[in-house]
Parts: sequence; C-alpha cells; structure tokens
Amino acid sequence: MKIGIYGYGNLGKGVEISALNDKNIEVVGVFTRRAPETVKTYGTPVYNANDILKFKNDIDVLIICGGSATDLPVLSPTLAENFNIVDSFDTHAKNPTHFANVNSVALKNKTTALISAGWDPGMFSIARVYANAILPNGSDYTFWGRGVSQGHSDAIRRIDGVIDARQYTVPVEESVNLVKSGVNPTLTTRQKHLRECYVVAKDGADLQKIENEIKSMPNYFADYDTTVNFITLEELNKNHKGMPHGGTVIRTGSTGLNNENKHLIEYNLKLDSNPEFTASVLVAYARAVYKLYLKNDFGAKTVFDISPADLSQFTTEELLSKML
Amino acid sequence: MKIGIYGYGNLGKGVEISALNDKNIEVVGVFTRRAPETVKTYGTPVYNANDILKFKNDIDVLIICGGSATDLPVLSPTLAENFNIVDSFDTHAKNPTHFANVNSVALKNKTTALISAGWDPGMFSIARVYANAILPNGSDYTFWGRGVSQGHSDAIRRIDGVIDARQYTVPVEESVNLVKSGVNPTLTTRQKHLRECYVVAKDGADLQKIENEIKSMPNYFADYDTTVNFITLEELNKNHKGMPHGGTVIRTGSTGLNNENKHLIEYNLKLDSNPEFTASVLVAYARAVYKLYLKNDFGAKTVFDISPADLSQFTTEELLSKML
Repeated sequence: MKIGIYGYGNLGKGVEISALNDKNIEVVGVFTRRAPETVKTYGTPVYNANDILKFKNDIDVLIICGGSATDLPVLSPTLAENFNIVDSFDTHAKNPTHFANVNSVALKNKTTALISAGWDPGMFSIARVYANAILPNGSDYTFWGRGVSQGHSDAIRRIDGVIDARQYTVPVEESVNLVKSGVNPTLTTRQKHLRECYVVAKDGADLQKIENEIKSMPNYFADYDTTVNFITLEELNKNHKGMPHGGTVIRTGSTGLNNENKHLIEYNLKLDSNPEFTASVLVAYARAVYKLYLKNDFGAKTVFDISPADLSQFTTEELLSKML
Repeated sequence: MKIGIYGYGNLGKGVEISALNDKNIEVVGVFTRRAPETVKTYGTPVYNANDILKFKNDIDVLIICGGSATDLPVLSPTLAENFNIVDSFDTHAKNPTHFANVNSVALKNKTTALISAGWDPGMFSIARVYANAILPNGSDYTFWGRGVSQGHSDAIRRIDGVIDARQYTVPVEESVNLVKSGVNPTLTTRQKHLRECYVVAKDGADLQKIENEIKSMPNYFADYDTTVNFITLEELNKNHKGMPHGGTVIRTGSTGLNNENKHLIEYNLKLDSNPEFTASVLVAYARAVYKLYLKNDFGAKTVFDISPADLSQFTTEELLSKML
C-alpha cells in the first residue's frame, strides 16, 4: 500500500514513523503548506501541498493530519474528490455534518473516506459501541488521562506572564473506583477529572495573579479542581516534554430476570506518546480503507463500519487459527 | 427479530432471559432433546428438537446452546441448512474445520451462520485483533479469572470420595502487574494462573489422598500452583454457587523510530454470571447475523467479520451523533 501524508506536525511525523516500521507500506510523500525545503522528515520526500493532484495515481490512501477546527472540514471533502482518505476529525458536535460532506464527495467520485480515526474518537468509540451492544442494560463512563492536554496547555500559555506550560488531565481515582464497584454513580465534571498544571512564569511575574487566572478560566479550568505548580524552564524541559495520554472506557450493567447479576466491561489505554499512537491507529485504518476501496465499497466511513477482519493485518486463515 | 433457542442448559436459560429483556426480540421456542414437558422455562414454549423444521419460517435466527466437544460439530452444520444460526463453538484447534463445515452448508443454502461467539472466543478475540492491528509491534497476554471453571470443577467431582467441588481460576497478580509494567515477560503456565479448589468430601474419605489426586492431575492441575480447601456442602452451597468469571487481555508494545515509546492496551471483563453474559453476547450477534442475512451476506462468519455498526442496536445517525 502506498500512502501520502498531508500535514506534518506531531501527528504527521507519527504517521511517517509508523509507516516506515511497516514493510508493507510505502510512503510516497509528505505534503505541506509550508515551504517544502523547511520541512525535515525521517527520509520521506516533501512536496508542496498544491502539487498533490500530480500524485493522484501514486497514492492508495492519503492520511490527512490537520486540525479539526478549520483544516479538516475543508481538506477532507476536497481531497476525497481525488483520493481515498483517513482523517482524525474530533469535533464531536459536527460529526454528522462532516460525515455528510465527505460522504457526498466520496460517493460521487468513487473514493473511500474514513473520518474520525484515532483513540477518542476511535478506539474508545468502538469500546463503547461493543459494550453497549453486548450489555444493553447499563451505563457508560469515560475517563481521560493521566495525560497532557494540548488545548489546556495552550490556554495557559496565552496568559500574560507565562513562558511555557504543560497541563495534565487526571482522572479522580476515587470516582474511577466507585464506577468499577458497579454502583452506577452520577458524577459531576469536578468529580471526574483533576487538572494539574506546570507553569514557567517570566521573572517578576505576579504568580498569584497567573494562578487565579488559570483556576477561574471558564470551560477550561473553572469547573475542575486545579493545581498550579510553578517550575523552571529547565524542569519543564526535563520532566514534562513528553506527550503521554490514555484513559479508560467503562460500562457497568446487569443481566438476569431481576438484574441480579452485575458485569463490568473496561477498556484501558496507557500511552507514552499520544501522537504516535494516534498515528498508528490512522495507519491501521488506512489499510482498511484500501481494502474497502478494492471491494468498490465507496463513500464516507467511520470506525464503526470497519470489521475487525478488515482492520487486521492477518489473513482469514490466520484469524481463524491464531486469533479466534 | 424472532429467535429460537436450541438446547436449554445454563447458556440457553441465559439466552432466554437476555431475549426477554429486549423488546425487539420475540422468543419463538426452546428446542430440547429432553422430554419437553420436563423442561421448565421462564415462559417460552418448549418443543421437541425433532420438530425444529416445522419452525423454519418462524425463526429468523436460531441460537444453538450446545457443547463444543460433540454437539456443535454436528448441530451447527446440520441446522445451518435451514436456519441462520449463532453458536459458541470454543474448541480452538478445530476452528478452521468447524468454520469450513458450516460455511459450505450455509453458502449452499443461503443462510448466515456465525460461529464461536461469546467472550473467549468472542470479545477477547476481538480485543486481540484490534490491539494487534493498531499496535503491530508488541506482545499479547491473556489472563482468565478470577472465575469458576466448569471443566476443572467437573474433573474434581470425578475423584473417588468427592461429593461436590468448585474450582476458581485465578490470575497471578504479580505476573499481571509485570505485564502491565511493559517489560514483556515470558511467563510459564504456573506463573500465569493459580487454581483454587473448594471440595466437599464424603464422611471418612481420605482427604490427603483426594488432595494429592487433584494436585497431580495432568493438564488440569499438575502444571499449576493449586490450593485445596475442604468445606462442608452447606458452605459450598452458600458461598460457591455462583458462576462468576472474567479476565484480561493485554497488549504491550512500542512505537517510535527506536521503539522508544511504550503503550499498553487492556480489555477487562468482570462478570457475575458467565452463562448470562455469554448469552448476552450471543443475542447481540444474532441481531448482527440477521442484518447480514437481510443484506444477502450468506455463509459462515466469525466475530471478526461483524463491524461494530452491524453489531450495534443503534442507528447510523445515533452512532454518528452519540457514540463516535
């Protein structure tokens, strides 16, 4: 399978690394809207994004590594005119619109286009759907972390007097244990997650003011128990440069004539590198997209439309004899 | 959807209960090889298994609740001639043969037949395939329990002087933690699971002899650290009558140019009632089988061939807007 990578931030780099580790995948090129000569890859040729149509016949699946806010709503439908694509669109409320936009283009042009791959949306969504199907009488819980939230880190960096910052989203352990105990609790935003901030401030900055500004920030921090730790730039670079993440999807429920038997279904991810793991999921779904395309199964797809067999690298015989 | 239940042991009862709890499912009948008047259901009519063909046009999917050793290898191919079926075949080494036998019959007769549903094989198999697809460089571990093994309990009951017994399979906690730490250990059979036995002996039986016989039993106990606890029949009936089970599928692996980033994927089940949960999985897959049948997608299938969307009780719109 020959893939192209459109966009080359952390996610694009992760896709390149993941594909380079797979002997069945050839990376045709990285396509960037920056000046190509300024982009340094791990060996893949870099092209101007404007030249992408020249590669129409050389790329089996194009993995689009752009942001959900403004990039993907435009890029995915546009690129699906000429390519099979995979994206990681994650603006939950706009899923139906994005799907419809991509679907009409893909059906018209006979391409296959999978949206919203990754781990949430993605593997966590799959875990929820399976758990709901096999345990229809129950409740869903999702906890994220412990992991770095780029959005929350960025929000802190925009505060006056802040040089750099890293924010960890942390599940409240007592709440996770309460959920696992099967008592089906109703949890507030504050009861589900803590926010742990590591902040590098300018010399002479008003630390109390920065801390107050963080803790009272609407949507991002105000509804959470937030801790703010001021550290040096050296400490931040030494201890907080990674991009770990993960989380837990739990469904608890019951069976029996009188719901007397309780069951717990739990899916956990613990990831050293959020972008590399997400990239690894995108590459797996690129393989599935290509399989569907070869079966003339066109249009927009989500992870829900892909069977485990279509996602798998194993043959039907291997699946039957080794994995079942 | 109208289902039939062929076989009425613990699993068949679980299927009936699960279906009765689903307002979209009608249970047409329980089919038994025993005298029908001796079988007491939770309300479903009971018929002689020999009369099953009279119901050919009344049953959308027949769920076969028989044993894998001798029942299913005969029943599944035979019944797939006239019915869409789901079975829970779990003799791992014979999966390819069973699949081939069912497939040829189902393709010829235009029925849809899903084999090996349940949680292992079943949900655990799915967890392994997804984890392998998205983290190709890694290792798989499966731990079962803490839960009752019927096979091991039966093996103890066959020992002279034993009235009743219950055997719990217990994962070795240190090994589970070692696996989760990401060091990728090689574990022996003994290092993975303990076997915990509760035995009711006849008055005057030679307890030491029974204990020795259990601990030295090849395949079942000899390769494990086994504890034997002699208890009264009252204690057994009070504390060990349930059929809890569960387990954990773990894949650890790495990404990065030099495999520098470690990842953990974990799927856990903790079940109060093994047969009721397994039944709940069979009923979910019966729904999927019927969807495939209505799309003229005939032949033998496994859980790997079923997409989350086909398994789900939700509509495409609900999946996009609520579950993704």
